[in-house]
Parts: sequence; C-alpha cells; structure tokens
Amino acid sequence: MRMSRDRPLSATSDRLEFVALPAIPLVKPGDDLVDLVLDGLAAAGRSLRQGDVLVIAQKIVSKAEDRYVDLRRINPSSRARELAALCCKDARLVELILSESTEVLRCRPGVLVVVHRFGVVLANAGIDHSNVEPASGAERVLLLPKDPDDTCRCLHEALRLRAGVDAGVVINDSAGRAWRNGTVGIALGAAGLPSLLDQRTRCDLFGRPLKASQQAIADELAAAASLLQGQADEGMPVVLIRGFSAPGTSAPAASLIRPQAEDLFR
Amino acid sequence: MRMSRDRPLSATSDRLEFVALPAIPLVKPGDDLVDLVLDGLAAAGRSLRQGDVLVIAQKIVSKAEDRYVDLRRINPSSRARELAALCCKDARLVELILSESTEVLRCRPGVLVVVHRFGVVLANAGIDHSNVEPASGAERVLLLPKDPDDTCRCLHEALRLRAGVDAGVVINDSAGRAWRNGTVGIALGAAGLPSLLDQRTRCDLFGRPLKASQQAIADELAAAASLLQGQADEGMPVVLIRGFSAPGTSAPAASLIRPQAEDLFR
Repeated sequence: MRMSRDRPLSATSDRLEFVALPAIPLVKPGDDLVDLVLDGLAAAGRSLRQGDVLVIAQKIVSKAEDRYVDLRRINPSSRARELAALCCKDARLVELILSESTEVLRCRPGVLVVVHRFGVVLANAGIDHSNVEPASGAERVLLLPKDPDDTCRCLHEALRLRAGVDAGVVINDSAGRAWRNGTVGIALGAAGLPSLLDQRTRCDLFGRPLKASQQAIADELAAAASLLQGQADEGMPVVLIRGFSAPGTSAPAASLIRPQAEDLFR
Repeated sequence: MRMSRDRPLSATSDRLEFVALPAIPLVKPGDDLVDLVLDGLAAAGRSLRQGDVLVIAQKIVSKAEDRYVDLRRINPSSRARELAALCCKDARLVELILSESTEVLRCRPGVLVVVHRFGVVLANAGIDHSNVEPASGAERVLLLPKDPDDTCRCLHEALRLRAGVDAGVVINDSAGRAWRNGTVGIALGAAGLPSLLDQRTRCDLFGRPLKASQQAIADELAAAASLLQGQADEGMPVVLIRGFSAPGTSAPAASLIRPQAEDLFR
C-alpha cells in the first residue's frame, strides 16, 4: 500500500534550504541589524522572500544592544560571594548572573543554573565571554539581549517595511539541557511564526486525534540554524531558512517557556 | 572591520538542504529500510552522495522491526496497577512502559516519565499508538526500536555496500523536555557522524579556548528533520540532509546520554 500523494494540507513543506549569510561584519553597539541582514542577503545573492525565516545568533543581538558589562565595575553582594564559593566562579560574574535571574536552580562546582528573568533555564544566565572582543583594561562579558521577543518583533516589522515581505525572525542561543550531553540551539526570541505549533486538533494518518502534540517549531528552527552557525570560530551568525511554512497564529518564544507550576523538573 | 573570508576549517558548511523523500510507503514488519530509502531517493530524483545524512523517523524503524505489542496479551503487575492509578493510564500500557525502562522519574496524573533501557528520558518510554494501523481485534501499540544505534550502524553499512557512499544515519523521535513547552526531534540512534561534537580544544574568534562546548550535532540534525516530518498526517518519515559536514570521529547517539551521576535534574 502506497501513501497517497494527495497529502492533506501539511504543517510543513517537503524541502528546506539553510544558508549562512556571508560577509556579516563583527557587530558593534548601535549597529543596525536590519542593515547587516540585508547586506548579508545581498552578499549571498539572495533577496528576502515571503515566508523566509532568519535565525540570528544571540551574540550579535547582544553586541548591537551594547549589553557589555565590565566586571571591574561590579561589587558582589554577600549572597553572590557565597554562591561563587560554591560554584567556583568569579563573585562579580555571579552577582551579574543573579541580577539577570529570578531563581537559582542548581549551584555546584563549575555549575550555576538559573531561571533567567525572561523565564528560560540557562547556565550562567546566558552570560559569557567567548567571541567577546577584548577591550583594553576592561574585563568584559556580554549579557543576553534586553527582550529577545521584542527585538524579533521590531526586526520583523523593519524587514516588512524595508524588504516588503513577512519573514519570520528567531534569535537563538546554545543551551545545555537536562538528561542529555551537549548543547543545542534554542529560540530566545521569535516573531512572525508560531513558536509552538499546536497539533492537538489534528489527526494521525488513521484519523485518530493526536495526543501530546505541541511541536516546538521555533526551537527546531533554532537548532537547525545552529548546525551552520557553529559555536566557535565560524563567525556565521545569521542563517536564512527558505521553504518553511507553518500554519497558525504567530506566537513569541515566550510561549515555549513551561510555567513553573507545570514543570516537574526544577 | 569585516570578518575574513578565509575562515579556519569549519565544523560546518555554509549551506544545507533538507529534502523529505516522497513516496515512502506505509512500512510493514520485515520491510527493508534500505530499499525504502533508496526508492525514496530515486522518487526524489536524487542519488546518495558522500557525506549526506539520512534522518529516519523512529516509527517506521519500529514498524519494520515488528515492535508491535497487543495490549490484550499484557498482564499488569501490582506495581504497574499502582502507577497506572497514579498517572491515570491503562495498567497494561504501564506494565509495558516498565518493561522498557530502568527507572521511573515522575508519575503524576497524565504523566509517566521514565529512563528508557537505552538511557533516554522519555514520557511513556516512547510507546504510543499514533500512526499505528488498527488491526482487527487487537489493541496495538508500538515500542521503540530494539537498539537504534545498532540499526543505524547496519543501515550505514548497507548503504555503503549498496550505494557506495558513506552517509550518516540518524533515527529520530519527538520528545518532551524539562523547562520548555512542546516536543523537539532528538536522536535515538546515529552512525557515520559525530553525535556529540567536542569543541573544547577549539578557540573563539579571538583565539580564546571555548568553555562549555560540546555540541549535540545528532540532536540538532534530528530537530531539523522533524520540521519536515511533522508529527501528524504528513507521512514524510525520511529526510535527506545534504551539505552537512562535521569533523571528528563517528560516535553513536548513546554519547548524548548524560550519565546519571552527572545529571542534576532527575
């Protein structure tokens, strides 16, 4: 028995293309990310199309938003000093992590896992200094963007005005996970696409309603883009995804945060 | 300051193509998955190339391996009955879940999260009945494949013999996560690629050694393929990924399992 080629309207297409945009310069505070993206598209010989998705690495968004902090200006609290002793980290960094967080989930030697103020569970509140340019006399680290969903909304709107198309925008970061080794790309922000695709009203191939069926679309796009971005010296922070289409209403990455009351693994 | 175009040897390429293979028939016990894949590639007008990755949905592997169980033949133990009462599930299904697991992590109304015998943390040990054909008089469910890493090794070897190329093979499934809503594709099995890419010896753009830098490549490939496979009635269980290259030694999906002693979130 062969499957019918007349498939029902699908949540997805049957072909996707991922292109890491070339010639993205090192980003400085105040840089216009829409300029960077449109220049990168031009360098790749592409123009933006309706339904394209752009995945942008958190790091360049943070740099454009000047989220640098000089650790020399941080005066750690006594709580930060206590935690720093437990997790063997710089007390000034721990103070910053606490200021970006709402809750400490785990503190062990080498490990500080917190709930970031926008709800994502992350080691070190997502603060790091890899790929942060050294500045003379400063000990710079880089915080996450101020409000990634809002940044995505602004970028989505700016791209609509300047390129004339509705493109999805995702800001991604690499994150560790419970139970599994290694990091994967996750969506910190999203606009112009349904971050969480609710399939609970859909049926399987045999017409039975699906059960546990919310698909974390924005996280899957973020993970896929991460394959091209790499985490080290690739310097490919923007990925164009062509061919993806998901039905449903746009929802921000905030919809991917499991409410604390429903989370059995904190 | 523009990034040099002479980038160091990258873990990744700058373009990926994902193609869901058409014309994959409904799979029956005993079917040869290599035949199915090669037929699907032919129907897509493609031939397999060195370095291609094939992502295959767990469900068709389980079907080919005849991992069906008729619930009517299951006699639940007293422990299964107790847990079934707590999580409001069929006691026969709970008995099966226990037989596929090494540890119960959470049991609440509607929720039974276990450590599967091959180490993956999964709701219901990955057993379900969506897209399982009804059989007259039977109450069929489908277990995960017997040994997904081993199946991937066999498929990798068979593709090498029959198509003459080394292609990566991943078996993926959709899994829920701690902290975040929605499922994402994860790798249950892998061969012919480094499931976990260790970047701890690499440097960032400014020559500093990277810190927490193991990238869960096979999970990111699994999540990306899931965007095309969907979870419902799409019937697109095999995805060809072209353009991906990762340095390093092949490692199975088992390398993605965090050892219990290092897991702070069980």
